Amino acid sequence: MDHDPFTQIVPKNVPEETAQLYVILARANQIASTTELDDLLDQMLELIILVCGANAGTLYLLDKETNELVFKVVHGDDTAKRLVGERISIDKGISGTTLRQARPIIVEDLPNDPRWFGPLVKTSQTPKNTISFPLLLRGEAIGVVQVFNYRKTQLELVQLLGSRMASEIEKAVLLQAREQHVRRMETLVQIIREISSTLDQDALLAYIITSARELLNAEASSLFLVDEESGDIVLSIARDVSKTSRPNIHVPAGQGIIGHVVESGKSILVPDASTDQRHYNGVDLATGLKTHSVLAVPLRTPTVILGRERGATESKIIGGLESINKIDGIFNQEDMQLLQALADQTATVLHLAHLYEDANELFLDTIKAITAAIDAKDPYTLGHSQRVSEFSVTLAKEMGLQPEIVHHIRVGALLHDVGKIGIPDLILTKPGNLTAEEYRKMKEHPTIGANIMGQVRMLQNEIQALAEHHERLDGKGYPYGLESDQISLIGRVVTVADVFDAITSDRPYRKPLSAEDALDWLNNNRGTHFDSTCVDAMIQAYLKGNIKTQKEQQQRQIQQ
Amino acid sequence: MDHDPFTQIVPKNVPEETAQLYVILARANQIASTTELDDLLDQMLELIILVCGANAGTLYLLDKETNELVFKVVHGDDTAKRLVGERISIDKGISGTTLRQARPIIVEDLPNDPRWFGPLVKTSQTPKNTISFPLLLRGEAIGVVQVFNYRKTQLELVQLLGSRMASEIEKAVLLQAREQHVRRMETLVQIIREISSTLDQDALLAYIITSARELLNAEASSLFLVDEESGDIVLSIARDVSKTSRPNIHVPAGQGIIGHVVESGKSILVPDASTDQRHYNGVDLATGLKTHSVLAVPLRTPTVILGRERGATESKIIGGLESINKIDGIFNQEDMQLLQALADQTATVLHLAHLYEDANELFLDTIKAITAAIDAKDPYTLGHSQRVSEFSVTLAKEMGLQPEIVHHIRVGALLHDVGKIGIPDLILTKPGNLTAEEYRKMKEHPTIGANIMGQVRMLQNEIQALAEHHERLDGKGYPYGLESDQISLIGRVVTVADVFDAITSDRPYRKPLSAEDALDWLNNNRGTHFDSTCVDAMIQAYLKGNIKTQKEQQQRQIQQ
Repeated sequence: MDHDPFTQIVPKNVPEETAQLYVILARANQIASTTELDDLLDQMLELIILVCGANAGTLYLLDKETNELVFKVVHGDDTAKRLVGERISIDKGISGTTLRQARPIIVEDLPNDPRWFGPLVKTSQTPKNTISFPLLLRGEAIGVVQVFNYRKTQLELVQLLGSRMASEIEKAVLLQAREQHVRRMETLVQIIREISSTLDQDALLAYIITSARELLNAEASSLFLVDEESGDIVLSIARDVSKTSRPNIHVPAGQGIIGHVVESGKSILVPDASTDQRHYNGVDLATGLKTHSVLAVPLRTPTVILGRERGATESKIIGGLESINKIDGIFNQEDMQLLQALADQTATVLHLAHLYEDANELFLDTIKAITAAIDAKDPYTLGHSQRVSEFSVTLAKEMGLQPEIVHHIRVGALLHDVGKIGIPDLILTKPGNLTAEEYRKMKEHPTIGANIMGQVRMLQNEIQALAEHHERLDGKGYPYGLESDQISLIGRVVTVADVFDAITSDRPYRKPLSAEDALDWLNNNRGTHFDSTCVDAMIQAYLKGNIKTQKEQQQRQIQQ
Repeated sequence: MDHDPFTQIVPKNVPEETAQLYVILARANQIASTTELDDLLDQMLELIILVCGANAGTLYLLDKETNELVFKVVHGDDTAKRLVGERISIDKGISGTTLRQARPIIVEDLPNDPRWFGPLVKTSQTPKNTISFPLLLRGEAIGVVQVFNYRKTQLELVQLLGSRMASEIEKAVLLQAREQHVRRMETLVQIIREISSTLDQDALLAYIITSARELLNAEASSLFLVDEESGDIVLSIARDVSKTSRPNIHVPAGQGIIGHVVESGKSILVPDASTDQRHYNGVDLATGLKTHSVLAVPLRTPTVILGRERGATESKIIGGLESINKIDGIFNQEDMQLLQALADQTATVLHLAHLYEDANELFLDTIKAITAAIDAKDPYTLGHSQRVSEFSVTLAKEMGLQPEIVHHIRVGALLHDVGKIGIPDLILTKPGNLTAEEYRKMKEHPTIGANIMGQVRMLQNEIQALAEHHERLDGKGYPYGLESDQISLIGRVVTVADVFDAITSDRPYRKPLSAEDALDWLNNNRGTHFDSTCVDAMIQAYLKGNIKTQKEQQQRQIQQ
């Protein structure tokens, strides 16, 4: 077998010209078999330089969006290689003329040609001549190839090779764009997944703003939310490359590009903000970021089907998402599609987060209101449940408990005395000492509370706060006389908080203790009545200034 | 200008063979400039038929996943065109041999060649000879071209054209695949958007199952959820082309393909279920659908950040999603990626729906428990709030009110008597008539209730049920003496339901009225005390059997 694979494919008994053409075209076919655009262009330019007996060359592709020729490959002088990625307008130079006229130009005396604007970077030697020809596809120029210091003007052959490659280049460019599109869609799906699992609004906004900037390859991005009261569009979060700026910016409704987007519900693509009348300069001034190009899309919540006969929520525009200053090139339709998809999911999850927030707020506020009303039956226990809940939470955090457990403690403590609904008012509000019978009845409130709330499936983690807040480690508590480990963590925490509030509050039969005296008393009863860890945490929290007795809270309110 | 554009590009003074080669290659270049695969193949086959002086031809592309040659273009006999899309194994025939050997085959006497297995469809005439040559790319055959009844064996030229086109074909195939991938990703993003706005589990599952089938182009798809108590994997919803089957299927934990997926958390792709030991036949038997290929992915909930100091939920596998019987071809990695992304979002939204459901259940169950406890202070009002809520909801639905409003009515009615917390027990439970002073106090409960709950921002739509359920259209009600339109819709609805329950329940001072008598009484007081529309709706609902008095409910319970 011959060591050059291409000579195999030349038919026998053909003229030398034909044989050469076969070999060159077989080489071109081999080069074309690469799907990677940069390799393809590189090898192709090399072949054309060879065919022309030249010693240097450049291959440019047209960027139709900007009408610029982009240097894709430069062969020859090493220093000239840094031109790769540079752009020149098609209005200029020999390459621009070649593209505009869509036909080859041969320049025998390059240094003296008026269209030659010299090398863009310093090279060792100015080329003496050039062949510049267009890459023609369906009659249109999609790029230009220039070779320098040629020895053969094989114009027909290089044009044949050029159009042989032009279709490959187009497909490779499209393929590269599609592959990039697939990757960006994959990133988008990944971002959406992250977004969807964040019901915390601050964390959500921070993540979105970073994701938008990265997905769009932009210098900055910002998220605006409509203020329901004023109707102003408020910059909720912005992030540029320096990640520092988060100014407090209000855009009046209907003003600025973002105002138009929010009002119309339509996306806006502004290639040059400086010439767009809608651009609101306030944001630039406040952030110190000069806006060149902007892509802005609305944040529109979907109609959410709530289920369980709760109907659906209405779709509405709650703000807008902006990408500012595309780093490479200009924003296009694909960018808009991606940003809109991101905005859609953002609005959806913001909406879900609000629904969830509202449902939780509804529950917490309702039990606060009801337990406050129960407390209020006896003026001496006014605000008791709320304070016990606050103390319990502070104590639990001091103990380093997990947020989920702290939340159970918050709710359980708030509800700990709900059983008082079942205790006659006369006993609850009796100013003097209770009779034995009355006291027996009074001691039923933990059981009553646990019974009332025991039917609530979602309160299983809280119920022991109701049942056990009068138990003691030494087993002398009520209603069950549980001992040490038999008492739940939540029960032990709430017991300490409950007693602390009781002894530091006014009672008809005695003066309130100071916080110090109360903590002393708790400390003296550690291990017998109270859990030591809880007592220690209470003392630590007090020393850090995180615990204020009823008296202290009242004094504070008066001072304010 | 010459009318044949290709003769322009032939260099002057070249041999005839060279000139012809230029023209043929220029035509090939023009053909190659199409990016649409089918057009490209079609025109290319036409050129090769022309070059060989043949009168028919076929172009096949290799499907690497199945090792089959796919008929892409057939030229010549019209009846043969129906072969397009058919597949033949590469183990067979002249085309298969060409592909396997990656070199041309010329058959002078086709009808007597043992490899020729005849036309797959009846054609007018058996071809007498054939040239079959591979489309070579980087030394490998990616397809085969066959021409029939050739007159010239220009083997080198057709091979040159073949490899000239092979790289274009590869790029066009990749481009088509990428474009399809982009479209599928776009569909996925659209599906994710739909999914994310559905917190109703049934609607969500139905949508997912349909989307999965369409996105994967599969015959059927099914969604399994782990039953938390038994650990069984339960077929929650399945949909095949007929959209009928939804059998009750439990797969024991760890069993079947889906059991493996749930246990391992890893996706499984089974090209042939009949030979896979993990396949659990129970589902096939129950659905009547024969499973050929299966793609199964886990449903894994993410770690959800809840915000507001509520911590985060833990990630866990809650079930699996299956696609069954790919309609065209076999499941591949792209399918798996798409199905997994769909499953991820499904699990996330199912989880969010549960969180939201739990938060709402918590609220509703808690206020049910508390209002029931308030009712229970007086044995005569046992279950009153719950019944008034049920009556109000039935009445509101009968009026055709929107689900959102019905839900406000449900909650408002449940809370309507919460102000009784502020009424002394002695008054609430007094067996005889109240004194004027006691009655004055008793009449404060709407105001007290509205005051207690007025602080709850999320109850603004419900508060009037508490405040206005003792108002009358004629202004003779309390506490505000509002008239007709001054009374809110929710107030008017709850008033009717409240009075109906009061007069049909036992009271210490009178016997309960029958439902008919009670409705008569309501009807007699329409327009003065009660809103006529509400009274009518109450009567209609009763006639439909949707209203049961306390007595009737008790009798029913005894019977059961």
